[in-house]
Amino acid sequence: MKDLTLVRSNERVDDLERNGYKLIQNPEVFCFGIDAILLAHFAKVNNQRQKVLDIGTGTGIIPIVMHAIYGKGHFTGIDIQEEMIEMASRSVKLNEIDTDVTMKVMDIKDYKEHFSTGYFDIITCNPPYMKGHAGLKNEHPSKTIARHEVACTLEDIISATSYMLKYGGKMCMIHRPHRLVDIFATMRQYNIEPKVMRMIYPKQGKEPTMVLVEGVKNGKPELRVQSPLTVYNEDGTYTDEINEIYGKKGRQE
Amino acid sequence: MKDLTLVRSNERVDDLERNGYKLIQNPEVFCFGIDAILLAHFAKVNNQRQKVLDIGTGTGIIPIVMHAIYGKGHFTGIDIQEEMIEMASRSVKLNEIDTDVTMKVMDIKDYKEHFSTGYFDIITCNPPYMKGHAGLKNEHPSKTIARHEVACTLEDIISATSYMLKYGGKMCMIHRPHRLVDIFATMRQYNIEPKVMRMIYPKQGKEPTMVLVEGVKNGKPELRVQSPLTVYNEDGTYTDEINEIYGKKGRQE
Repeated sequence: MKDLTLVRSNERVDDLERNGYKLIQNPEVFCFGIDAILLAHFAKVNNQRQKVLDIGTGTGIIPIVMHAIYGKGHFTGIDIQEEMIEMASRSVKLNEIDTDVTMKVMDIKDYKEHFSTGYFDIITCNPPYMKGHAGLKNEHPSKTIARHEVACTLEDIISATSYMLKYGGKMCMIHRPHRLVDIFATMRQYNIEPKVMRMIYPKQGKEPTMVLVEGVKNGKPELRVQSPLTVYNEDGTYTDEINEIYGKKGRQE
Repeated sequence: MKDLTLVRSNERVDDLERNGYKLIQNPEVFCFGIDAILLAHFAKVNNQRQKVLDIGTGTGIIPIVMHAIYGKGHFTGIDIQEEMIEMASRSVKLNEIDTDVTMKVMDIKDYKEHFSTGYFDIITCNPPYMKGHAGLKNEHPSKTIARHEVACTLEDIISATSYMLKYGGKMCMIHRPHRLVDIFATMRQYNIEPKVMRMIYPKQGKEPTMVLVEGVKNGKPELRVQSPLTVYNEDGTYTDEINEIYGKKGRQE
């Protein structure tokens, strides 16, 4: 039995539908979306010794789901927001995975004070999608930080990642397609070569709403563009692939 | 009646199935593919006065099809291969469009000797897909030049384009998805911002085989990724969109 005394009254516990893993969330602040789940499935852990960092981890959804899926690897989630890391740490305790998953308050711009160069095998990031202060801001500052590049820019994330990633290590990111040129150009600028890309379409024949990108530190130029991932069937139900990602149970957003 | 005395014995004349336009080709040398047609449809001419350049025009297929589709604009096709330009010029005569379409032998690397900066509104290119001398070479040198970066590189093409394109002018290119990072990074390096991208999938659920990219000289960063273009239905027939592009007649390749 999981220790539910770890959950506060304004929070809820979501079943991640994968090996009984759960996640604490505060609906007033920020709840994870399908993007985090897609990224966790895209960024594959290959062996027991791999060290994985998640930048801007928020609720800790990505390291926790990756631990649930792959059952191996050592995960660190970092976030500039203390209250998010405090909550994410309780999710780690709730799942009793403290030996493999650590949550840490940290500004990504201070990466050199926290990690040595080439330390990580895999770095994941589901960054803020909106440039600078563009677009509408949400009320809660945690939402603003999660959605807008106010605490850090794409370049801050990629330059830090380049330093922390080992030779041949991979960076996995999910973002909006309209930032694809920024992602490719900035990754290459910092010696992380984009090697795999997958477009995510809400329905067949529509414009894509998200894109998954894997870059390899010191990789040779040659991009593999994977088959499209479609989220919904014509009738609004999830496609088989999405159901599989959600553990065949057909989660609702 | 078109003047068929312009056609040599080793050549054939293809009906472009658009307003009676025809193209002379030599099957021993190089015949156009679906990529040229897709690019011609992607690179839209907006008004009568627009000046359009096609780099590496080969048979002249792209300017000739664009003239057929849009019925406006002034087109120049350039190619390093004399015999291709000689044949393309005969296709221009055959269609009696000499006043609007010019074919010219030229090495793209000599662009400054031929054109002033900012001269063109639109520049199209269906460049060689293979890097340098990589991969198998075909027997005929024209095929090698069309398929491999032996006469010029992607950077040669983009740097020349940047010079020749007016402020706000557009570059339209079709290429292989595995070169997408090179295309985006090099365009941005030469101040041509990628603004529109469309992936071309052979069938639904497969990996894309081609990609269309439109860049705008001095454009602001923000990419629009269009809905996917699928070539074949499950049963191997052309999709409706491809039939429409081919003038609803259902061409066979």
